[in-house]
Amino acid sequence: MVDRIKNSVEQYVDGNQKQLIESLKQFLRLKSISTQSIGMEECADFLKETMDDIGIETKMLRKDGAFPVIYGEVKNPSATKTLLIYGHYDVQPPEPIELWDSDPFDPVIRDGKIYARGATDDKGNLWATIMAVKSLLENNIELPINLKFFFEGEEEIGSPNFKAYMLENKDLLAADYTILCDRGIHESGRPQMYLGHKGIMNIEITIKGAHRDVHSGQAPFIPNAAWDLVWLLNKLKNENDEILIPGYYDHVLQPSEEDLELLQKVPFDKKEYSEIYGIKDIIPKSDGVDALVALLFKPTATINGLTSGYQEAGNKTIVPCQASAKLDFRFVKDQDPEVCAEKIKEFLNNHYDGVIEVKMGDHRKPSKVSPKAEIVQVVIECSKDVYGEDPVVWPMLDGAGPMGLFEEILNAPAIIVGLGAPFAFANTHAPNENISVDNYLSGIKLMASIYQKYGGKDIE
Amino acid sequence: MVDRIKNSVEQYVDGNQKQLIESLKQFLRLKSISTQSIGMEECADFLKETMDDIGIETKMLRKDGAFPVIYGEVKNPSATKTLLIYGHYDVQPPEPIELWDSDPFDPVIRDGKIYARGATDDKGNLWATIMAVKSLLENNIELPINLKFFFEGEEEIGSPNFKAYMLENKDLLAADYTILCDRGIHESGRPQMYLGHKGIMNIEITIKGAHRDVHSGQAPFIPNAAWDLVWLLNKLKNENDEILIPGYYDHVLQPSEEDLELLQKVPFDKKEYSEIYGIKDIIPKSDGVDALVALLFKPTATINGLTSGYQEAGNKTIVPCQASAKLDFRFVKDQDPEVCAEKIKEFLNNHYDGVIEVKMGDHRKPSKVSPKAEIVQVVIECSKDVYGEDPVVWPMLDGAGPMGLFEEILNAPAIIVGLGAPFAFANTHAPNENISVDNYLSGIKLMASIYQKYGGKDIE
Repeated sequence: MVDRIKNSVEQYVDGNQKQLIESLKQFLRLKSISTQSIGMEECADFLKETMDDIGIETKMLRKDGAFPVIYGEVKNPSATKTLLIYGHYDVQPPEPIELWDSDPFDPVIRDGKIYARGATDDKGNLWATIMAVKSLLENNIELPINLKFFFEGEEEIGSPNFKAYMLENKDLLAADYTILCDRGIHESGRPQMYLGHKGIMNIEITIKGAHRDVHSGQAPFIPNAAWDLVWLLNKLKNENDEILIPGYYDHVLQPSEEDLELLQKVPFDKKEYSEIYGIKDIIPKSDGVDALVALLFKPTATINGLTSGYQEAGNKTIVPCQASAKLDFRFVKDQDPEVCAEKIKEFLNNHYDGVIEVKMGDHRKPSKVSPKAEIVQVVIECSKDVYGEDPVVWPMLDGAGPMGLFEEILNAPAIIVGLGAPFAFANTHAPNENISVDNYLSGIKLMASIYQKYGGKDIE
Repeated sequence: MVDRIKNSVEQYVDGNQKQLIESLKQFLRLKSISTQSIGMEECADFLKETMDDIGIETKMLRKDGAFPVIYGEVKNPSATKTLLIYGHYDVQPPEPIELWDSDPFDPVIRDGKIYARGATDDKGNLWATIMAVKSLLENNIELPINLKFFFEGEEEIGSPNFKAYMLENKDLLAADYTILCDRGIHESGRPQMYLGHKGIMNIEITIKGAHRDVHSGQAPFIPNAAWDLVWLLNKLKNENDEILIPGYYDHVLQPSEEDLELLQKVPFDKKEYSEIYGIKDIIPKSDGVDALVALLFKPTATINGLTSGYQEAGNKTIVPCQASAKLDFRFVKDQDPEVCAEKIKEFLNNHYDGVIEVKMGDHRKPSKVSPKAEIVQVVIECSKDVYGEDPVVWPMLDGAGPMGLFEEILNAPAIIVGLGAPFAFANTHAPNENISVDNYLSGIKLMASIYQKYGGKDIE
């Protein structure tokens, strides 16, 4: 019975390659450039219709001034588990067009790869998650779980209405876990997943000195906003990359034994990494697991930009009256961004007695699912089965994202399952974006397999 | 005899006000905007012709691609002293024109002030130095010194050919002292002079990290150029405004007793000063003479600008791959800028082991004339006589300038004698630039008096 399902799905996918690829191509042909408000409605309609045809019950969620969310559901009244799938149907603008080898909105296959804007970010990946349903339903295989879909159209513009959509549709979206399908497999060809991510908050510090720039002959008298900023930032973090705010590391979650075991299997070589970025060495002295722990389990305070005074060619002998720094702070579970924000603000105000403005952006909470969680075990096993290799499992993503909201608002913690092309070759946000036919078809098989196995129906 | 001369000059100036003002107005009507290459030759010709008419032997000095220098000389074969007068005939652009109350190139007198671009910077002041010669020669009073004039046309574009002109005309320009006439009297109405100035050097420090900006999720791995710059600058100067380069203060000249006496008479109130610039307080804790010593006798390291990473609205979560700071270092006699430059470079290289570029600009040496020098005593006495008040004598100017070259190349140290409108009311480089008729006429009297007295002929 289990083997029957597995075989059915594999046979279906392999036997219907042509149609599965053709339908993705149709989806890719529709421009859906959120930042330019081009083609969004047409693309959303097509996505909804396709889901309807498959047998997914859909609903177009709308908000004023926002692009619609396509919500989908495959109900199973007897199922006890609910899984929510996240993807986005909007894409980046294709520019610079002249650097594409073919029309970004006329997908073509070259050397086994489908080239088009959105091929892997995120239309190809998204398509795999619904084609997986098709491959099951067309074989009359019932889904043993409640399956829900949340496809937004604003990811490439920073998901401005993501939180509001989620809050307004809290009950509709309720689930046990969320799977985000907006990443690729590992460069080594192994499948890849992430069990969580850091939180983040942007802040901008502005120091104000005299009411205007002053001739630098007056430097011994006039407080220099740029120097004051330098001295203040130097107090915030030292050269050992340690944030010097008292108690800042108090609640930082240390990696568990299971996390460390997973990191053992993550391919990482600091020499190779350093070469990619053109640096002499990475900051941590360590390599391997220790270095990865530093990457993933360490809160950060990163200067993103500095601005002060005269920045054009040549010189201007002034004492600048203003200096500012943009920073991002990334949080690690179980840091509370609100508590951290308070600490940062207090520290800055306590350490500078001139005029200082500290603008804090919205924060996003860190999130992490335990490696022992059932959903994680299920995805690991399915990945092994479909790809024939151990997945690369990152206990945490180095980045942050709105994924924390799935845990925060829906109580449905998110894991990220890589379906698309490996990041290094995918050309996401760049000319010649692509996904390989293999990546796409394996993605369909993986998702079908997860839907089944998480429902308790083994397909091995 | 002496009284006769004084009376003659005063009578001449007071009796010929109308013509003296009219000729200045003619000079002010000629646009001579160096930065826009407008009207330069016409203005230079007019200046030369006027000097010729007065009886000053002139010579147009030229260099390819440079605006001409008008050299002038009144020879006295029996005189033992030679004085060189510096001024400039170019002006700043008048923009924004709409903020002027009258045409910047059609001088008008309102409330006793002549309004026009260049009224005081530096056409009015320059004109006073030659009208002083006219007032003597028209009264058949022989000059008891050799008097030379060096009027450049490139001051407002940074005097790019100043040094070359001086080197090429070293013998022609030879003098005992130089008087620079490119400043105003004191805001209190007292005459004003400066006995020297700081030296200066601009440097730009650029730190380079990865070969491109990197997603700040990678912050624990990727060296951050902005943080590295912050930490490096923090090592260069501490919060007590102390430059931390070993031996940096070794040759700094301390103020002499005479310097301190002069500073006693300089009006300075830190509260008033702070209000002008909108700061809570000046950096030094001290007031009065001690504060002025900090202003004038302290080498400085001033950040003029900081640039790194993302500086537009909103946020960009990157580890910036480059960060740079522009600084000016001001030197105090007897610091040698070349030795200092070496020390700065060595210090920066020793304290940063990544990729760092240190670009050093040309330097200018500090210069200072002793308060005891004869020329200083002469100007002080003449100022008292003409203005009826003690001059404000600054042992040093807080700023720097090319004036150091007069000492360096010609061995003719420069002092600055204020002839124009007080800086706070002059609107130099701004709309409604002006000089009062009184300032202008007093300037003529003062210069005539100096020409006489420095030659040993007392006019009191």
